[in-house]
Amino acid sequence: MKKRKGSSRARRIVLYDSTLREGDQSAHINFSKEDKLRILEKLDDFGMDYVEGGWPGANPKDTAFFQEAVRLNLKQAKLTAFGMTRRPEVTASRDPGIRTILRSGVRVATLVGKTWDLHVKEALRVSYEENLRMIRDSISFLKERLEEVFFDAEHFFDGYMANPEHTLRCIQAAEEAGADCIILCDTNGGMIPSRLRQIVREVFPLVKVPLGIHAHNDSDLAVANSLAAVQEGAVQIQGTINGYGERCGNANLCSVIPSLQLKMNMPCVPKEKLRTLRECSRFVAELANQIPDRQRPYVGENAFSHKGGIHVSAVTKNPRTYEHIPPEAVGNQRRFLVSDVSGKSTIGEKAKQFGLDLKGKKGAAQEIMDTMKDMEKKGYRYEGADASFELLMKKALGKRPKFFNLVGFRVMDEKREEREPPYSEATVMIEVDGKVEHTAAEGEGPVNALDNALRKALEKFYPQLRSVRLVDYKVRVLPSGEGTGSHVRVLIQSGDGKREWSTVGVSYNIIEASWQALVDAVEYKLLMEPKSSRKA
Amino acid sequence: MKKRKGSSRARRIVLYDSTLREGDQSAHINFSKEDKLRILEKLDDFGMDYVEGGWPGANPKDTAFFQEAVRLNLKQAKLTAFGMTRRPEVTASRDPGIRTILRSGVRVATLVGKTWDLHVKEALRVSYEENLRMIRDSISFLKERLEEVFFDAEHFFDGYMANPEHTLRCIQAAEEAGADCIILCDTNGGMIPSRLRQIVREVFPLVKVPLGIHAHNDSDLAVANSLAAVQEGAVQIQGTINGYGERCGNANLCSVIPSLQLKMNMPCVPKEKLRTLRECSRFVAELANQIPDRQRPYVGENAFSHKGGIHVSAVTKNPRTYEHIPPEAVGNQRRFLVSDVSGKSTIGEKAKQFGLDLKGKKGAAQEIMDTMKDMEKKGYRYEGADASFELLMKKALGKRPKFFNLVGFRVMDEKREEREPPYSEATVMIEVDGKVEHTAAEGEGPVNALDNALRKALEKFYPQLRSVRLVDYKVRVLPSGEGTGSHVRVLIQSGDGKREWSTVGVSYNIIEASWQALVDAVEYKLLMEPKSSRKA
Repeated sequence: MKKRKGSSRARRIVLYDSTLREGDQSAHINFSKEDKLRILEKLDDFGMDYVEGGWPGANPKDTAFFQEAVRLNLKQAKLTAFGMTRRPEVTASRDPGIRTILRSGVRVATLVGKTWDLHVKEALRVSYEENLRMIRDSISFLKERLEEVFFDAEHFFDGYMANPEHTLRCIQAAEEAGADCIILCDTNGGMIPSRLRQIVREVFPLVKVPLGIHAHNDSDLAVANSLAAVQEGAVQIQGTINGYGERCGNANLCSVIPSLQLKMNMPCVPKEKLRTLRECSRFVAELANQIPDRQRPYVGENAFSHKGGIHVSAVTKNPRTYEHIPPEAVGNQRRFLVSDVSGKSTIGEKAKQFGLDLKGKKGAAQEIMDTMKDMEKKGYRYEGADASFELLMKKALGKRPKFFNLVGFRVMDEKREEREPPYSEATVMIEVDGKVEHTAAEGEGPVNALDNALRKALEKFYPQLRSVRLVDYKVRVLPSGEGTGSHVRVLIQSGDGKREWSTVGVSYNIIEASWQALVDAVEYKLLMEPKSSRKA
Repeated sequence: MKKRKGSSRARRIVLYDSTLREGDQSAHINFSKEDKLRILEKLDDFGMDYVEGGWPGANPKDTAFFQEAVRLNLKQAKLTAFGMTRRPEVTASRDPGIRTILRSGVRVATLVGKTWDLHVKEALRVSYEENLRMIRDSISFLKERLEEVFFDAEHFFDGYMANPEHTLRCIQAAEEAGADCIILCDTNGGMIPSRLRQIVREVFPLVKVPLGIHAHNDSDLAVANSLAAVQEGAVQIQGTINGYGERCGNANLCSVIPSLQLKMNMPCVPKEKLRTLRECSRFVAELANQIPDRQRPYVGENAFSHKGGIHVSAVTKNPRTYEHIPPEAVGNQRRFLVSDVSGKSTIGEKAKQFGLDLKGKKGAAQEIMDTMKDMEKKGYRYEGADASFELLMKKALGKRPKFFNLVGFRVMDEKREEREPPYSEATVMIEVDGKVEHTAAEGEGPVNALDNALRKALEKFYPQLRSVRLVDYKVRVLPSGEGTGSHVRVLIQSGDGKREWSTVGVSYNIIEASWQALVDAVEYKLLMEPKSSRKA
C-alpha cells in the first residue's frame, strides 16, 4: 500500500478487485478454476492493484486455484487470499482458516472481522474484549509472515451508528496489530452517501493507517458511496467487475474507475488500459455466463446509443451535447440506432492485430463491416471469438481456403433406460480434393459425438488436427423468450498445447451452432498450420 | 405543487414518473397504447403524484393515448404532457408542439428548454435573448391556459458549469413566466453527487419557485444525485420505474422511493402502497417485455437472498444482521438459496415455504440434506430451480407420485446442406397406468423436438399440460475442462399463464440434462394441478 496522503489533488487510488470471491458468491455465477485463472490474468493485465482470489481451503476448487495462481507471473496485481479473524478461544496459529491462508502461498491476505456489537453479541456470542483479541491476534500473526495484511471491518457503518466506541476499538486494534489498510465495509448495503461521508470524515483523523471502502449495492448507491469515501480520504476501493456479487452486488468497478479517472482527477490505470474497460467487462460477463446489461453505465451496449434525430444530429456536430465522456475513453463506441456509422476503426485495429493490411482495400473493409453487422444482427458476438473473426476477415480478403466440403452428418441420441443417459452417435461424410470420407463415432452427448466424428474424418487428410483439444464449451441462450425454440450461441475454446483460440456459432439449433464453432475451430488450426509437422 | 418548505424534517416529496416517455425511448422498449394506459392506472394506484404520458402529437400512438388517458378517473395522479419550448421566431400560440399540448386535454404540461450555452449556440443557433424569450413566452402562454406548468431545465448542470449567468437567467425567466416547478436536469448523466449538490446549494436561494431533479444514470449515480438534490431542497423527483430510459436509463424510482421513505424520513407514498413496489416493478417489466434484473436493489429477486450458511443462520436469528430493510416493506421476500454451502436451517426454512412439515421427521430432513449434497456434487444447483427442489423434498417425504414411465426416446438431427441447419425429430414412448403412447414430433433443434414429443404424448392423459409453456432455457457448461465432454446443467423456466416455476437437469449429455428438467417441469405442474380443469 502506498502512504496515505490526505487529499492531495491527483491521488493514486488503489484498486482491489473482488470478482473472484464476491462475484462467485452471486446467486447465478459459478466460476470454474479455469475461469478464475483467466480472469485473474485479465485483471492483472487491466491494471488492478490487488485481485482477491477467494477463500483458500473453503472448497477444492479454490484450493486448486491458489495452487496454480501463485505460480503465475503477474505483471502488477498482487493476489490476495480472503479469510476471517481466528475463531474464539483458539490461537491464530491453530486456526484452520488462517493456516490455509499461509499454506496457499500468497503474500497478501485480507481478513474480515466483526465490528458491529450486534454481530459480536448475537452471531459470534463472545465478549467485546475477546472480539478485539481475535482481530489483534489474527492480524499480527499473519503480518509477521506475509508482506501485507488488510482488515475488512465488516458492518463498519452499522456498527459505528450503533456503538461507535466498540467499532472504533476494533479498527484501532487492527491498526495496532499492523494492518496495512483498514477497509470500512457497508456489508448490508444500506448506507446513503451523506451519512456514510459524515462517518468517514469523523473516523479519518482517528487512525493513521490508510482507509479503504467496500460497498454493497442494496440501496443502488454502492458507486456513490465508494466515491464519497474516496473524497473523504479513503485510498483503497474494493469492488467487482460489472458489480457482480451477493444480493444486489458490490460497487461496480466498471463505473467507479472511469468516474474517478475522468471526472475526479484520480488516475487509477493508464489511459490505454482504461480503453480496454469495456472488453474487460464483456470478458468477465462471458465467463460468468451472464448476459451483459445493455444499460450498464460506461460499458453497456446502449451507454452511448442515440435514438432521436435531434440527438443524433447534435452529437454529430458536437459529441459533448449528449455524451458525458468520449466513449472511446472506456473502449465503448457511439451507436446511432437508426443508421449506424461506427465500427470501421475497430475493424482496422483488429486487422492490424491479425497482421492483415486493409490499406487500399476499401471494398474489403466495407465487406467485413457489412458481414459483421449482418452476423451481429443474427446473434454472433466476436468479443469472445477472435478466431472466428479472423476467419471472417480472411474470407473477405480472399485468404480463407476451403479445406473440406460437408456432404452430410447425422446425430442420434437414444434412451432406453430411465436411469441411464442416452447413447449418442454421429456419422459424418466429408469430401477433400474429391476423396470422400464417411465415418462414425460415439460420444458423451451429441456435440461430443459430432466433434469426434468430424475430427476422425479429417485426421485422415490433416494429421496435424490430432493435437487439437476442446478446452471449453459454452452455450448461451439468446434473449427472445421462446423457451427451447430460442437461438443459442455456442462459444468453443480450443487448444493444441501451444496456443488456444476461440470460435462461435449461432442457430436456433444447438447442434448446428456447435457445428459452426467446431468447423471454425478446425479451420483456424489448418489456417495457422496448413502442413502437418508430423508424418501423415 | 405544494409550497416549497426549505428543509423541514418530514418533507413530502413529489413523485413525477416519466416511464411512459423516457422508458419508451429506451433502445429495447416499445410500449403499445394499451400498455401505456395500463401502466398509467398502475402508477396512479401506486401513488405517483404526476405521470408523464409522452409527447402528444409526436406520433399517432401518443395522440391516441392522450385521447383515452384524459378520460380515465385517476385517483390521485395528474397526467402531464411533455413538449419543448416554442421554436425560434414563432409565437407560442402558433407553435405546433404547444398547440398539441393544449389540444390533448391535459391540465398539466412539462416543457423542456435549453439552458446550456453550448446548445443555444450550436444546436438551436439563436441568441441568448431569443432563448430566454422562447422560455418565457411558452410558459406564460401555457400557464394562462392550464393548471400547472413545469420547466425541465435541460443540461442545467453542464450549463451552470459552463456559463452560470445564462443558465440562471433561463430558470429565472421560467420563474417569472409562472412555472410551478423548475426541474434541474442532468441530461447527459455525467454529474457526480458532490458537484451536483454544491450547484443545487448555490442555486436554491436564487429562485423562489420549488425545484425538482431529473437525473440520468450514465455515471451509475442517478439515484445518488436525486437524493443529494432532495437533501439540498429539491421537492420534485423525476424518474422511471426500474430506471428504464435512453442510454443507461433514468433515476430508478424503485430505488429512490424506498430510500427516501425508509432511510431519510421523507414519506412519498402510504406504507401499504410501498409494499406493492415490487409488484409495480414486475408489472412494468412485464409490459416492457424486459427480463427483470435479479440484482435490482429493493425489488430484485436476489435483493434479499442469502447463500452462505453463516448468513442464513444469522438472518434467521435476527434479520438486521444481513438485511438493510425488512423485505416486506417493499413487497419483496427473504430467500434462502439452497446450495452446497447452506445448512439445515435453510432446508427447514424452505420446507416451511413449500408448506411441508419436517417436524418429527428427522429422518426425512437428513435424507433431504444427503440427497441434496449428493446432487450438488453431481453439479445440480437448486438456487435457480425451486420446483425441482420441492420435488426432491416431496420425494423424500413420500409425497411425489409417479405420473408416467418412460419406455424410451430417440432424437435425431440430420444435416444434408452446408447452409441449412439440421432437421430435428424426436420419438417418445411413455406408459401411463399400463397404457402405452408412442409418438413423434419435429422441433427447432433437438431439445425443442423432445419437448414437443414429450408433451404431445402426455397431453393425451393430462390435458392440463396444454397451458404449459417454456419461458426460458439456460445451459451452463460445468467446469472440468474437457470441452464438449464436460457436464452441462440445464435450467428451465416454465409457466402456465398463472405462475412460473423452474427446474434443473445435469448430465454430460445435453439431451439428458434437458430431459430431466423437462420431466421435472411437467411433473411439478401435475403435482400442483393433479386433475385437469378442462375436459380431457
